[in-house]
Amino acid sequence: MGTIIAVDIGGTHLRTAAYESEQFEPSAYRRVKTLADEPGVFERMVKAIEEVRPHDGPLDGIGVASPGPLDPHTGHMLATPNIKQFDNFPLAPKLTEHFGVPAFLDNDANMACLGEWKYGAAKGHHDVLYLTISTGIGGGVIANDRLLQGYHGLAAELGHTIVDPDGPPCSCGFRGHLESFSSGPAIVKYVLKELENGAKSILKPDPNLNAKQVADAALRGDALAIAAYRRAGEYLGIGVASFLHAFDPSIVVFGGGVSQVGPLLFDSFHASLRKRVFHPRYLDNLKIEMAALGDDAGLLGARTLAEQSLQAIR
Amino acid sequence: MGTIIAVDIGGTHLRTAAYESEQFEPSAYRRVKTLADEPGVFERMVKAIEEVRPHDGPLDGIGVASPGPLDPHTGHMLATPNIKQFDNFPLAPKLTEHFGVPAFLDNDANMACLGEWKYGAAKGHHDVLYLTISTGIGGGVIANDRLLQGYHGLAAELGHTIVDPDGPPCSCGFRGHLESFSSGPAIVKYVLKELENGAKSILKPDPNLNAKQVADAALRGDALAIAAYRRAGEYLGIGVASFLHAFDPSIVVFGGGVSQVGPLLFDSFHASLRKRVFHPRYLDNLKIEMAALGDDAGLLGARTLAEQSLQAIR
Repeated sequence: MGTIIAVDIGGTHLRTAAYESEQFEPSAYRRVKTLADEPGVFERMVKAIEEVRPHDGPLDGIGVASPGPLDPHTGHMLATPNIKQFDNFPLAPKLTEHFGVPAFLDNDANMACLGEWKYGAAKGHHDVLYLTISTGIGGGVIANDRLLQGYHGLAAELGHTIVDPDGPPCSCGFRGHLESFSSGPAIVKYVLKELENGAKSILKPDPNLNAKQVADAALRGDALAIAAYRRAGEYLGIGVASFLHAFDPSIVVFGGGVSQVGPLLFDSFHASLRKRVFHPRYLDNLKIEMAALGDDAGLLGARTLAEQSLQAIR
Repeated sequence: MGTIIAVDIGGTHLRTAAYESEQFEPSAYRRVKTLADEPGVFERMVKAIEEVRPHDGPLDGIGVASPGPLDPHTGHMLATPNIKQFDNFPLAPKLTEHFGVPAFLDNDANMACLGEWKYGAAKGHHDVLYLTISTGIGGGVIANDRLLQGYHGLAAELGHTIVDPDGPPCSCGFRGHLESFSSGPAIVKYVLKELENGAKSILKPDPNLNAKQVADAALRGDALAIAAYRRAGEYLGIGVASFLHAFDPSIVVFGGGVSQVGPLLFDSFHASLRKRVFHPRYLDNLKIEMAALGDDAGLLGARTLAEQSLQAIR
């Protein structure tokens, strides 16, 4: 087998890595600015792929992890909120056209899930639930050793699970999603609303307040900041209880910046989960772990997607 | 290939059928009373299998559809609320011991899903969501042409999805599950509570009231009865919206007695679903259909489970 090139399109950086089969470390790696608002994202991607491409051996395929919505079955980006150039853009077919090899595409949370399953925290598990908690909540599911993609390629959008029909609006505009309770911006919004209602806190009603600042205040003992994370953890437990009932995984893996805060979020999460799981058997031998691959999960997932997809079409 | 015997354990009847490969109709069929409260359920099952068993050809295996909770990976029944004899009972191993052939077991909703996928309303679909709505709400999911079973064999318990953390208690004792809003008993409970609160209705506060009587009252124009079904449909739409986000199927199949009432439940279901699905693409080409196999779904699913499992171990 020849080289696989993996691409990870992030909000600020676009990264490419070349992987030789059976080797964990990339043989070449490149990181450039995405500059999502400016034209030429695709051209920057092509250049960053050229720069890691081997010159002395065959290129077998390309795998791409990108923010959605997208269609992994056709490799097309759909209407994108973030990268204007990718609005209804046939990304994988364009890469195939340019490089003459098969190219595959799936969303960043699915790719991080696949990466953690193949190389990281969920290695050896057959049924995996992955959740990334940051500015949004993304999900990924492995069932029977296979990534759950769905008919339209839109499965595992678990941040948009309705956990309370009358809950606050989500970033997507709909009400009461898990993301509208437990993401970073949801934690901040709760603090700002409570400040407006007269709650006492060392935090100021600053429109630029972020989840990290709330976490810092909580660690200094601020009651409002603590309550904000506790609430996020409680709803996270409600959501994950339903996900256990739905997918019955042997491991839950948490990635994303907000999940780095530790007990502040996870004490109430665990209490809520235990209170909400309707049969104790779901928790037998269930592992709950932090993601192990850090920023490389998306690249390693995109690599795995390309390897698996190439095997399937051979 | 020889004969497969399928068993369907229902609350009132226990049924067995013998299937020859490639033939849809059973070569023999038997229906006896389950008598769940009385001892000897296993012995009645063995007798009903003996009675459909071929005498002139090999028996290849046995598939069983049963109410849960159970472990499909070991074939053991767990703590059963309904059939006392099956409390922590190694059902599939006992059948193997008796008949000398492999035996396989999974829960009735999963088996109905598998049956509808192989022979019924979901034939040809690769990603299926099945929901049965009667005294409880059971779920089944096919992803990538494979039944979702999960690590403990407890996946797709979709009636126990939390749709409102402060909602009414479910039959399982936990709060706010889809089943506690949209099952038959949930519809009845809502009517009784509203009657207690002084709501006007042709229905009387009868503790033996059932969902069928509420449906009859609704069809006669009773406002409370109509509101009860409308509320059940609204929550069903909320639940199914989250299931689309999670599983992204190409078809949703409804079985069970309560789903037979038609527009009374499904008008508000469709309106609620359309209002709650967060991306219109989930609805592209999505089929929403009634189950096609009636009472035979469980038998045909158990048959399919046995056929697939035998293929996998060969």
